[in-house]
Amino acid sequence: MGNESLRGEGEALLSADVLRQALKKVGSERYHHQHPFHLLMHEGKLSRGQLQAWALNRYFYQSAIPVKDAIILSRSDDAEFRRAWRKRIIDHDGDGNARGGIEKWLKLAEATGLDAERVRSKQEILPATAYAVNEYLNIVRTRPLFEAVASSLTELFSRDLIALRMDRMRQHYPWLAGGLAYFEARLEQAPEDAAFAFEYVSTQAKSRAEQERVIQSLRDKCDILWAQLDALYFAYVQPGWPPPGAFRIES
Amino acid sequence: MGNESLRGEGEALLSADVLRQALKKVGSERYHHQHPFHLLMHEGKLSRGQLQAWALNRYFYQSAIPVKDAIILSRSDDAEFRRAWRKRIIDHDGDGNARGGIEKWLKLAEATGLDAERVRSKQEILPATAYAVNEYLNIVRTRPLFEAVASSLTELFSRDLIALRMDRMRQHYPWLAGGLAYFEARLEQAPEDAAFAFEYVSTQAKSRAEQERVIQSLRDKCDILWAQLDALYFAYVQPGWPPPGAFRIES
Repeated sequence: MGNESLRGEGEALLSADVLRQALKKVGSERYHHQHPFHLLMHEGKLSRGQLQAWALNRYFYQSAIPVKDAIILSRSDDAEFRRAWRKRIIDHDGDGNARGGIEKWLKLAEATGLDAERVRSKQEILPATAYAVNEYLNIVRTRPLFEAVASSLTELFSRDLIALRMDRMRQHYPWLAGGLAYFEARLEQAPEDAAFAFEYVSTQAKSRAEQERVIQSLRDKCDILWAQLDALYFAYVQPGWPPPGAFRIES
Repeated sequence: MGNESLRGEGEALLSADVLRQALKKVGSERYHHQHPFHLLMHEGKLSRGQLQAWALNRYFYQSAIPVKDAIILSRSDDAEFRRAWRKRIIDHDGDGNARGGIEKWLKLAEATGLDAERVRSKQEILPATAYAVNEYLNIVRTRPLFEAVASSLTELFSRDLIALRMDRMRQHYPWLAGGLAYFEARLEQAPEDAAFAFEYVSTQAKSRAEQERVIQSLRDKCDILWAQLDALYFAYVQPGWPPPGAFRIES
């Protein structure tokens, strides 16, 4: 956390390839594929109740995604950018015929054994879930547009995580198999979206300091995903696991 | 969490006394005096490192308080209200002679053995601390003014908690005794502030539905305090403790 705005000031611009490597490094250190909650999930060690808690809380995140994307869309004065970005809203909200990502997530929640209306009401989510998701909205609303776009770059990493997850879910939680349509769609959508967003930030960040802001925005977004799992782990699983970069007690 | 806006619609207005009782009930159920992190603190069971983590994270909360109060002040068109409310900003920021609450908190952090600059930099806080505090700012920025004011009503309960805490700190962590000036000041400030805020909301909430919004705002603020301790407990202490009202796994 904190002010990083001066980092990179006066240094040479990174090439697109080097920028991509720097973003991948953030992913390897901070993306939530490493979070103990996901490790337990992929090892088949979560109970049905724990998967319910995950599906119910993450529904809140999923249902904010088109709002986040509409904020980003609203901040661009470039019709070409807006035409490209609106795909994301359609992907999540559907188009009246094809079911969108939010409804598909609801199907996953139902496959865990939860009633759809209970999930849709959002009444039982952890407050910390709402705070983390609202912080995502704060970021895309208040930071420069290229940073808002950069915060979506966790999609650079999501395909691999989703492929692994689908495999492990079919193996360990076969009763969930009928609820995986959300992930199925994301296998294709996420890499397309990431490619567009990367292209955008790599042309819009015109100084090394701006490139550092791109990298920081991705770090901040990783923290938002991580914190949601921390809250789940604390409420529904266990121990003491400060997120990357946070204060650690001296041993 | 969730939409409570219709609660109380068409029902009779509560008297000021009954409203106060309803607020006290929220406090007894949700205020953070019950949080396991505070229970450990008051039993003398926290290590110096755990108290450092607490002081360092809560510094982020303390330093946002005058920002929160300035947002509230900025939203009132009543000079009398603004004159009364600005006292809070002075209490926390100081006046050039008397040290304000933020600096006093820094003294507490130093008494735990942390370097003031390290705390002031905010670099090592838990992301979840920032999300919870920023949600407090979201609330006072976006909800009707009487709800923003109502969110300060945790001060109805803080005097008792602070008196207990000072007593237990002197008993269990005598090396902290030189850092308690923040709490000393709050013993008097908090009840004054709470009396003003209660008077304001009890005259401004003109329907039962609005009174229910007052109660909900206090609940939401309690959740914000509670979530900060959850994050500390998860990162630096232990188990599984869903906050009041959140999903619970069926046993």
